[in-house]
Amino acid sequence: MTRADLRIDIVRLLARLDRLAEVGAIEGGGNARLALSDQDRDGRDLVIGWMRDLGLAVTVDAIGNVFGRRRGRHDSAPLMTGSHIDTVRTGGRYDGNYGVLAGLEVVEVLNQAAIETERPIIIAFFTNEEGARFHPDMMGSLVYVGGLPLDEALAAKGIDGKTVGDELRRIGYAGPEPVGRPDLHRFVELHIEQGPVLDREGVTIGAVDSLQGISWTEFTLKGTPNHAGTTPMRLRHDAGYVAASLTTFVRRLANEFGGNQVGTVGSIKLFPDLINVIPNKAVVAVDLRNTDEAKLKEAEGRVAAFIGETAKAEGCTVEWRRLARFEPVIFDAGMVATIERTAKDLGFSVRRMTSGAGHDAQMMQRVAPTAMIFVPSVGGISHNVREFTKPEDLEAGANVLLQVMLELAG
Amino acid sequence: MTRADLRIDIVRLLARLDRLAEVGAIEGGGNARLALSDQDRDGRDLVIGWMRDLGLAVTVDAIGNVFGRRRGRHDSAPLMTGSHIDTVRTGGRYDGNYGVLAGLEVVEVLNQAAIETERPIIIAFFTNEEGARFHPDMMGSLVYVGGLPLDEALAAKGIDGKTVGDELRRIGYAGPEPVGRPDLHRFVELHIEQGPVLDREGVTIGAVDSLQGISWTEFTLKGTPNHAGTTPMRLRHDAGYVAASLTTFVRRLANEFGGNQVGTVGSIKLFPDLINVIPNKAVVAVDLRNTDEAKLKEAEGRVAAFIGETAKAEGCTVEWRRLARFEPVIFDAGMVATIERTAKDLGFSVRRMTSGAGHDAQMMQRVAPTAMIFVPSVGGISHNVREFTKPEDLEAGANVLLQVMLELAG
Repeated sequence: MTRADLRIDIVRLLARLDRLAEVGAIEGGGNARLALSDQDRDGRDLVIGWMRDLGLAVTVDAIGNVFGRRRGRHDSAPLMTGSHIDTVRTGGRYDGNYGVLAGLEVVEVLNQAAIETERPIIIAFFTNEEGARFHPDMMGSLVYVGGLPLDEALAAKGIDGKTVGDELRRIGYAGPEPVGRPDLHRFVELHIEQGPVLDREGVTIGAVDSLQGISWTEFTLKGTPNHAGTTPMRLRHDAGYVAASLTTFVRRLANEFGGNQVGTVGSIKLFPDLINVIPNKAVVAVDLRNTDEAKLKEAEGRVAAFIGETAKAEGCTVEWRRLARFEPVIFDAGMVATIERTAKDLGFSVRRMTSGAGHDAQMMQRVAPTAMIFVPSVGGISHNVREFTKPEDLEAGANVLLQVMLELAG
Repeated sequence: MTRADLRIDIVRLLARLDRLAEVGAIEGGGNARLALSDQDRDGRDLVIGWMRDLGLAVTVDAIGNVFGRRRGRHDSAPLMTGSHIDTVRTGGRYDGNYGVLAGLEVVEVLNQAAIETERPIIIAFFTNEEGARFHPDMMGSLVYVGGLPLDEALAAKGIDGKTVGDELRRIGYAGPEPVGRPDLHRFVELHIEQGPVLDREGVTIGAVDSLQGISWTEFTLKGTPNHAGTTPMRLRHDAGYVAASLTTFVRRLANEFGGNQVGTVGSIKLFPDLINVIPNKAVVAVDLRNTDEAKLKEAEGRVAAFIGETAKAEGCTVEWRRLARFEPVIFDAGMVATIERTAKDLGFSVRRMTSGAGHDAQMMQRVAPTAMIFVPSVGGISHNVREFTKPEDLEAGANVLLQVMLELAG
């Protein structure tokens, strides 16, 4: 049996996915393991237990990233794979978890075949990829590659007012390893697509060659909280109306730009949020994404101009803060070619594609040649308990990962 | 000194307003005494103490309405005045409280002058006028006049999931008096305008001859919670977008109708309310008001048609429930004339006007000739800690109430 004949064990991989999904389980089969919550801690403990069972040397760094290292024949720059195990509040069981646990499955296959790779292999999971509790998202990988000072990340306050630093200490994951620019050979991340492209086209493997730029902005609008019955329409300063206008504008803008442009308002909060009081305050979050940095900048400018004009006309004030901003990322051409060729060799349909979601891989591209492997999400549904990828697709993706890693680790 | 020379004591009235405003005080000088909360209970206890100090016989009915009765020469149908002492979450200190405490001030003037009126006088405050915790608003007066069965009102669930019945018992205000159609001679309610008309025109007294019809509807929109980055615009089923479109439509509709039509969206809740998840659910509340019932019905129909079309185009479902619906009210012509004449006799500027807000008086008109006295709200601001009426206007309104009550009680 040659290396090329090795295959992952899908039953074993599904069993680990099922077991991890029991931690922070929510109705409908999904997960709520917000970063650095008790549930996240329990998930971390579970995965680290598996890492140790597989003989990996586990280290935790100062931002809580976890690394399980398998020795290579030489102590050269390691090949790393990994993803994240935190989830949004209404998360599915595949997002992130699949990439981490498929990495463990690769290790188990190598262990059983008693294969020693030339380079060390690291299976990683990064802190707070989702950004559902703390901003910015992809925090752990960003700090890891030196893109965000550690002390800034530790001081970040969550939606519940607690800081990353305090919560890391509370759950016991403020590790001793320093963060900073690591010396890596390559990074490859296996992930569900979280979009409808592969599923709709019936393609099994995505060789991800780029990633959309992301712009998250929070606008705070302030008006006057008058009585809904007695205040004539022309005398209103309605912060909620401005927030709603912005929401419909973002839709019009995305449709007008077309192409890869998407725009979403996922969060609106009105104050005092009472049926008969004109809102005096609204907090609204805008998510803009494009693979073209110039277009993304233009969209940001159009949103800023619209909110300025609309608020002024309504007699409201605007404050804004950038919650996250990442330029589009182009992945390593050689890595993408390797993934594409490997998928074909294994007999899977494959296409090159862009990622619409942010991933830890976009940070890793700053320090090492990087690319991603996608498998289909049924209906394109993600961040939802109905998130689903067929077992045969999970198996295909993990086998591509296995063979890519065998090639890259030597 | 004749009856016509009697005047209220503004210092005493202001002192009671100040003291009541200390209960459930919030930053900026306002009040939060949501109906049947601990703060509401403390406010009730305080006002009932004053009623007893003034020699009133206090009774509490099964929906928690409180009545302080002053004997008349005859045991004939009483003259009632009153309002409410519950507030919205960000309430001012005058809304409701002013009418109740001015009633107590009238009693104190009569007591000091040793005046015995022909008819008994009742100073009342009604449960849950605001509707900020329990729907419908004006609940206590509605039950009192027989417009809502007691058991339905007691079963109403608040924003915190607790019922009116449980909360009445908890705070000790589930009284022994039965509710039902009372035998009243007249009802008069003194209130701040809560709108900008008197203040802008420099008029001291409003003789309120009608009240806008009110329509409150809550729409629940359901879509699909996809990932904000990976879901192409054309494949979205965004419940938040539909809610925002409705909000801007309500504004356009009110502007198009003009006249007395107002329309407000004061409450929008998105789920899961995360920046990077397309909302799969939105709950949005629409407040429509008009003095013309036909116009109000037309506005309701237009809103229903719009939300139906917009949700369908977005692939979302709509459910709706009516939270409150009151037809416009025409107050008693003789009462309005009495208020107008009394204000003129006292040397105050006066105008007839419509109330844009709902008041307990609109319920009382069903069982007794009723009208309202308004005083100016500076800037038209209400339901806000900045709510303010000048002491001289508070004094003027209370003196009009005193003289109107003297005339009506005989």
